[in-house]
Amino acid sequence: MRTSYAIGVDVGGTRVAAGLVDRKGRMLKEVRALTPRDAGPFAIVDAIIELIEDVASGVHYAEVAGIGVGLPAQIDFLKQSVEFCTNLPLAGVDMRSLIMSRVRHSVTIDNDSNCAGIGESRFGAGKGVRDFVMITLGTGVGGALFLDGGCYRGARGLGGEIGHMVVQLDGPPCPCGGRGHIESFVGRPAIAARGREVAKTFKAFALREEAGGDAEQVTAEHVIAAATKGDEDARAILLEAGEVLGRALVGIVNLLNPKLVIIGGGVGESAALLVERAGDVIDGEALAGRRDVRVVQAELGNDAGVLGAAALAFDEHDSREGIHR
Amino acid sequence: MRTSYAIGVDVGGTRVAAGLVDRKGRMLKEVRALTPRDAGPFAIVDAIIELIEDVASGVHYAEVAGIGVGLPAQIDFLKQSVEFCTNLPLAGVDMRSLIMSRVRHSVTIDNDSNCAGIGESRFGAGKGVRDFVMITLGTGVGGALFLDGGCYRGARGLGGEIGHMVVQLDGPPCPCGGRGHIESFVGRPAIAARGREVAKTFKAFALREEAGGDAEQVTAEHVIAAATKGDEDARAILLEAGEVLGRALVGIVNLLNPKLVIIGGGVGESAALLVERAGDVIDGEALAGRRDVRVVQAELGNDAGVLGAAALAFDEHDSREGIHR
Repeated sequence: MRTSYAIGVDVGGTRVAAGLVDRKGRMLKEVRALTPRDAGPFAIVDAIIELIEDVASGVHYAEVAGIGVGLPAQIDFLKQSVEFCTNLPLAGVDMRSLIMSRVRHSVTIDNDSNCAGIGESRFGAGKGVRDFVMITLGTGVGGALFLDGGCYRGARGLGGEIGHMVVQLDGPPCPCGGRGHIESFVGRPAIAARGREVAKTFKAFALREEAGGDAEQVTAEHVIAAATKGDEDARAILLEAGEVLGRALVGIVNLLNPKLVIIGGGVGESAALLVERAGDVIDGEALAGRRDVRVVQAELGNDAGVLGAAALAFDEHDSREGIHR
Repeated sequence: MRTSYAIGVDVGGTRVAAGLVDRKGRMLKEVRALTPRDAGPFAIVDAIIELIEDVASGVHYAEVAGIGVGLPAQIDFLKQSVEFCTNLPLAGVDMRSLIMSRVRHSVTIDNDSNCAGIGESRFGAGKGVRDFVMITLGTGVGGALFLDGGCYRGARGLGGEIGHMVVQLDGPPCPCGGRGHIESFVGRPAIAARGREVAKTFKAFALREEAGGDAEQVTAEHVIAAATKGDEDARAILLEAGEVLGRALVGIVNLLNPKLVIIGGGVGESAALLVERAGDVIDGEALAGRRDVRVVQAELGNDAGVLGAAALAFDEHDSREGIHR
């Protein structure tokens, strides 16, 4: 029987999503549940299994190529082990075996940013591009590198942590323990903090309004919403963040000479202004010959992780079976 | 007849070197000449040809696999074209054809930092390492990336410009037109400028002494010489530069997760203190799991470029002939 489907799972700090995906990247069924954050790793595995069973229910098991699982963790891809995990209690847990012992398919795990990148590479903004960089702008700032046509993960499979590159030697502390990293300028908390600061000034009433009149309640989403409505204070915040992101990307573009930079994640997908600004900065500062790099928003939205995890499962299946795309 | 030799040429802003190299990386003959900087591209080609003829004189032409030429320029490797060149009048000049029309061998051109990296990869500090980053610290700061076992050059072959990554958003101007790039902190001019500044202070007599008593004459080499003799002021300058390099490398290590970082170039090879400091900084700030990266000095010194260019010629020859190492 032809393996027409794969199951992709995207485990986030807040929600778990699973989908049944065909080889063209069509999501035939998708289900979501809240991530059981505080009940230990087995509860998370239970939640994953329940979603997998749900999406798999309508198809014959032999039609499913395999299961891909994206985790918000640092994964040693070759060993298929969870090395570090900040938001969920998964470090050192053999997630692959735990899941595989309860399903009839082969399971492959990968970092969630890599899955989103694989999704965009196969079905979205990166389709047909051999060399691109994907940045996931959300609460954290992650990324994935596609070099010479494939996802490059580094010597131990831990590459792609774009958010933790130094852009300001004496910059603010980063949650990772470093200083002046990209994440401390353009992550959701950084944008929200700047939003609260600005919202406290007399003139920034539009931004305060977004947060119900309370400057202390301003979030990154409020800043983006106000900017989208044209509020100048909010636009200035996103332009500042886009400037920093662009400066960081100048370095990445000079280092890697990619053809394309895809900016995704919740912030990246909603803040077009930030993405445009980053593109303009690259245009002005990258070394000649590299300025033709395109900077675009991701295309798959929230589905990128599930679609990419499914693509990973197809790839693993096909390389086991000796099938070349 | 077996192709036992290749000819490597390393064109620098000051000198051109050429060598006859065997498959084990032994330099059987090496010759050098001053680079005719101001007489146009043909004079440079003449100088290259003269050196090639000199080193090739003792061997049968059929024993030579080919000629590799490293240029201090940005090369589109696939097109084999010189895209940009700051120090010599080579931009847009078809160097490969000009050289090839006057020799009996196939010619391959590449960026000089890539050649040095290929040299270290094949015969030096990077031997047997699949994933490493090479940084060339000299007047400029260049680099080369070895990913998944090969030199990664990017979409247009222009990658590896490590010196032009932003580490300080509001940093000093860089000769490339950008701001706060690595090169403006750790290149030879930056170290020399800091040396002159420090040498003007009353206590820094040891550093002044190196420059014949004149603070205005202090060079990066004087700083390194004084530091090697134990002078605290000079040591502090190298430690500062090593700190910046280390912070920049934190980002590169988090992004690429290499197994090894090789620091070469005139400054990198003589300033062990700077290299050690950079390693310590990575150890303290890189994300967990990436801190086992080793930071070492290059091993091949000035010969890296010639040896790497020769290795490139062997590779091109062997891939044409279908020979796999």
